[in-house]
Amino acid sequence: MTTLEPALQTKIDTVEKRLQSLLSMDTAGYAPLREAARYALDGGGKRLRPVLTLVVNEALGGQDETALDAACAMEYIHNYSLIHDDLPCMDDDDFRRGRPSLHKQYSESVAVLTGDYLLTYAFEVIAQSATLSAQQKVDASRCLAQGSGGVGMIAGQAMDLEAEGQDLSVAQLDAIHLHKTACLIAAAMELGGICAGASSEVRQELHAIGLLLGHAFQIVDDVLDDEQDAQPDNGGVNYVALLGRDESWTAAEKLLQESLAKIAKLPGNTAILADLAERLVHRTV
Amino acid sequence: MTTLEPALQTKIDTVEKRLQSLLSMDTAGYAPLREAARYALDGGGKRLRPVLTLVVNEALGGQDETALDAACAMEYIHNYSLIHDDLPCMDDDDFRRGRPSLHKQYSESVAVLTGDYLLTYAFEVIAQSATLSAQQKVDASRCLAQGSGGVGMIAGQAMDLEAEGQDLSVAQLDAIHLHKTACLIAAAMELGGICAGASSEVRQELHAIGLLLGHAFQIVDDVLDDEQDAQPDNGGVNYVALLGRDESWTAAEKLLQESLAKIAKLPGNTAILADLAERLVHRTV
Repeated sequence: MTTLEPALQTKIDTVEKRLQSLLSMDTAGYAPLREAARYALDGGGKRLRPVLTLVVNEALGGQDETALDAACAMEYIHNYSLIHDDLPCMDDDDFRRGRPSLHKQYSESVAVLTGDYLLTYAFEVIAQSATLSAQQKVDASRCLAQGSGGVGMIAGQAMDLEAEGQDLSVAQLDAIHLHKTACLIAAAMELGGICAGASSEVRQELHAIGLLLGHAFQIVDDVLDDEQDAQPDNGGVNYVALLGRDESWTAAEKLLQESLAKIAKLPGNTAILADLAERLVHRTV
Repeated sequence: MTTLEPALQTKIDTVEKRLQSLLSMDTAGYAPLREAARYALDGGGKRLRPVLTLVVNEALGGQDETALDAACAMEYIHNYSLIHDDLPCMDDDDFRRGRPSLHKQYSESVAVLTGDYLLTYAFEVIAQSATLSAQQKVDASRCLAQGSGGVGMIAGQAMDLEAEGQDLSVAQLDAIHLHKTACLIAAAMELGGICAGASSEVRQELHAIGLLLGHAFQIVDDVLDDEQDAQPDNGGVNYVALLGRDESWTAAEKLLQESLAKIAKLPGNTAILADLAERLVHRTV
């Protein structure tokens, strides 16, 4: 499982560089907004979503360069959601990855605007990409909007806030996590297919795999949070509280195996994708 | 100036109907978000931006139906910006057009999410439009992102917040208003050109006209606010405070005449556009 590590690290480095260079362009807009956005992005993170886009794209025969702007747009969307999620009226988190969250470092108003800025810029980056055809840009834009919007991530955040303080069933928790986490991961995978010029059947399959993997990823997040006694995001209810630690691992493993079975049936060279899928679930951080 | 009133009213009605029908679709997402978005849109307003898009599109030979989804996307963007602008950490407005603002009617968290939802949905509506070509959708998406993003409206909002409590020069106030108001109005006009299949030269000219008209529109807003003793948005400084009422009117009139001279040189049947331009400036509400 470690043989493909250098290939993944190269993809992370490529993404990091492009995330910063896109934000350095004057055409990226007003300098104070770019500076605040850079602060948010400098916090690190796994770059899971853009790397998934690049890995899927490569598995299906695409070059990194073709998919890079779209992958960065995906990461901008993810980062905007973290900035807005941390706001006092939302999860009220003063820290993000060991540093003050954006509204603590700057102000609440700057955090609202920087989130809006990154969300908007994501769609501009796709529209301006020099490597995608017009139809690929339209598909990418639609994929990003659906994964992150009212049928996807934002719906999950709204469900999560509504559920606060309530006793949830496993089905209800599944619904929240599928929307809040899995829809954007599914979009990241579908985006890789769009950039590689995959058929709509393959793109649908990538989306389905992304939902399975995103779901498993979130369950593992809950288990790791529980092990570290961290406060879970969702008002105190998480998979461990409902299923226990062992059964949560079992559920994540089952989703991983389902996704690996689907990955094996994809066209192309899917070894690196299968490797990444395992890493998403078999992890300790 | 009243001869074209029925044509404009028909356009407003067409926009109203489509704004609501797009939000009624299940594919528009999670019902509570759609309901909150509908509350925001039900507040009325002039529908200036989408009507400008339709009027420009018609002047250049386009059918309303072709530009309607793009026009609605423009109005969703405008409405998201009002929702986020009203938040306690921003302008802290409890009322919007005589009704409780969205965060008072629902909650701050719902207001943040509904704004994010409408912003994201705008780009989805463009990507899914059945009447535009792929290249038109890409151009429309870019136009919307630039007009509303870090080089446009969001930059203006950030400048506005930074300027609070400071003494501004006319040049500084111009810069805020050009970004905060005029860039989106310029994008609305350019969008009409994109939908009508105009050349890039005509689209650039439409953008320039939109900046002039948007600027004039904002000056008139300040004068009308001053006449009604309303609290101006920008920390107490507005054109009337800097220039006086008469000179503000003169400045707005000068911008209108510049824009009318440019409109007269556009191809197509621009009578309705010239009429609308005059209405934007010669108004009492």
